[in-house]
Amino acid sequence: MTTKKIGRQTVALANPPSIAGHANVVGKKEGEGPLKNSFDHIEQDDTFGEKSWEKAESAMQRMALASALDKAKQPVSQMDYIFAGDLLNQCIGTGFAVRGQDVPFYGLYGACSTMAESLSLAAMMLDGGYGEWAAAMTSSHFCSAERQYRTPLEYGGQRTPTAQWTVTGSGCVILAREGEGPYVTHVTTGKIVDKGIKDANNMGAAMAPAAYATIKAHLEDLGRRPSYYDLIVTGDLGALGKEILLDAFHRDGVDLNNLDDCGTMIYDLEAQDVHCGGSGCGCSAVVLTGYLLNGMRAGRWKNLLFCGTGALLSPTSTQQGESIPCICHAVAISTQK
Amino acid sequence: MTTKKIGRQTVALANPPSIAGHANVVGKKEGEGPLKNSFDHIEQDDTFGEKSWEKAESAMQRMALASALDKAKQPVSQMDYIFAGDLLNQCIGTGFAVRGQDVPFYGLYGACSTMAESLSLAAMMLDGGYGEWAAAMTSSHFCSAERQYRTPLEYGGQRTPTAQWTVTGSGCVILAREGEGPYVTHVTTGKIVDKGIKDANNMGAAMAPAAYATIKAHLEDLGRRPSYYDLIVTGDLGALGKEILLDAFHRDGVDLNNLDDCGTMIYDLEAQDVHCGGSGCGCSAVVLTGYLLNGMRAGRWKNLLFCGTGALLSPTSTQQGESIPCICHAVAISTQK
Repeated sequence: MTTKKIGRQTVALANPPSIAGHANVVGKKEGEGPLKNSFDHIEQDDTFGEKSWEKAESAMQRMALASALDKAKQPVSQMDYIFAGDLLNQCIGTGFAVRGQDVPFYGLYGACSTMAESLSLAAMMLDGGYGEWAAAMTSSHFCSAERQYRTPLEYGGQRTPTAQWTVTGSGCVILAREGEGPYVTHVTTGKIVDKGIKDANNMGAAMAPAAYATIKAHLEDLGRRPSYYDLIVTGDLGALGKEILLDAFHRDGVDLNNLDDCGTMIYDLEAQDVHCGGSGCGCSAVVLTGYLLNGMRAGRWKNLLFCGTGALLSPTSTQQGESIPCICHAVAISTQK
Repeated sequence: MTTKKIGRQTVALANPPSIAGHANVVGKKEGEGPLKNSFDHIEQDDTFGEKSWEKAESAMQRMALASALDKAKQPVSQMDYIFAGDLLNQCIGTGFAVRGQDVPFYGLYGACSTMAESLSLAAMMLDGGYGEWAAAMTSSHFCSAERQYRTPLEYGGQRTPTAQWTVTGSGCVILAREGEGPYVTHVTTGKIVDKGIKDANNMGAAMAPAAYATIKAHLEDLGRRPSYYDLIVTGDLGALGKEILLDAFHRDGVDLNNLDDCGTMIYDLEAQDVHCGGSGCGCSAVVLTGYLLNGMRAGRWKNLLFCGTGALLSPTSTQQGESIPCICHAVAISTQK
């Protein structure tokens, strides 16, 4: 077999898997934002009926998986793999969601890039012939993330202007080896980029260089111009990170007129008081599995470059004075093979 | 292309990748154990010259990667992918080790199954034609794990009889699409198994049912008897978990005479006062990359089934009264394709 690798970081899938189903679940705040019509479930009670925020996060993943399976008209037993992860210590949001599903499972940690990471690996596994069906999913919950990364909500801490708001939500994509579009056609695997940003309340600035590196690599590897894509969407850079990314391309003489960012799309930044926008694994996951893939199905876009961005820090690394290693994985999705 | 899937959980690699290099790094205690002659680096200072235990863990991964690359006679720039993860919150041992390597990276969370998980995914990615070279690695550090999962070392807490000792060590395998044996021939992806064990100091009992399920699935999927393998090695069940696993097979009328466990192999359980044995991602990683693969190269074994076991709990899930979801991934390694 010949290699599917093109350039340093990109692969072209020989038999692009079909996105057979996709669904999401969000909390109250997300359900009041500009993308509210694209969500499958908007829960008014952010506990999701559970006794802890961590258990609520697992409940969201189970709901997203069940809905995506339903849309793909498949039982969970049909899945050859689940690829999933989340932000919580030891990824317990995922571990307890996948428990009981009785499906072969690979746990991932890619921080907020997890939707792109899980989709990348699931797509390559099906394209490579290792199975017929796979689920890719992730989640984040404002309350579980805040108390783990920052301070308990009860503390009522003031948020800095560059802060982002962790999305309460979960998204799941069901991929099939055979089927109708949209298809996953290319994957560009990210490298870790760390430009020395140490402010854990300024993730956008930390992640923008990783997004720049991966998008640039993707375009160079495939010899494509940005305009090849109807839309290039980054994970959750937020308003500041998006500006930094646009500026970086502008210095190269490239105007990314077709760039948008899930972190700026999911909330009305001013009216919803979220400062720079949304973040968390759930952010890009629910925007992809709602607004973006629905839009592709409706014929709004034909070619999408979905670029999940993640900041691989922890409270411990921040306390030890470390800067923030970041990553971005890009997945090309097209209505045509 | 026809599917490479055999049965529910197993795949047969069409072009089994070669294990082109493997290396490890361990701390002082591991270097005093029965496998001391199989380790590449035994460090007397468990800080590895770093200012924190977490940074020491990253230093170990960098050393293991560099040594494995050296043995494979490859520069790091030749690697198409690094697959890696660890036990720390947000996998910072790995994030900070991979930062600066300039290699496409997929972060994993599989707890102590990570060596098997990373090896599984790396092998399928090369077999599938997505690259020529990949590194699979993981680490754990007694001091970073103790203070994160249990209590700070300074507390001097009494350990229970079923406790295991987190290995300070890191192992790395370099896989190549072409080359000499040993080869990775089959991968059996684990499902999450949770039999209700809630004692975070009894991981062996929690993980044994996952090991049983995956080994059973592997043998059934391929129609092999246990005796096909010269050695079946579980990740780190420890003395009690190994007994439970043997007992489970015994009830099926199968005597696993060729079973051993990395957790019982790495220490002299009594003389080194480690109760039930070793644990941690580093445990199976350093036993695989030392004693086991060295032994295969020396002709001691031809067919090995390496079964990494992981407990997907966190201190938070334990505090919330949850039981322990566990997983086991099995990788068949053979001197012949």
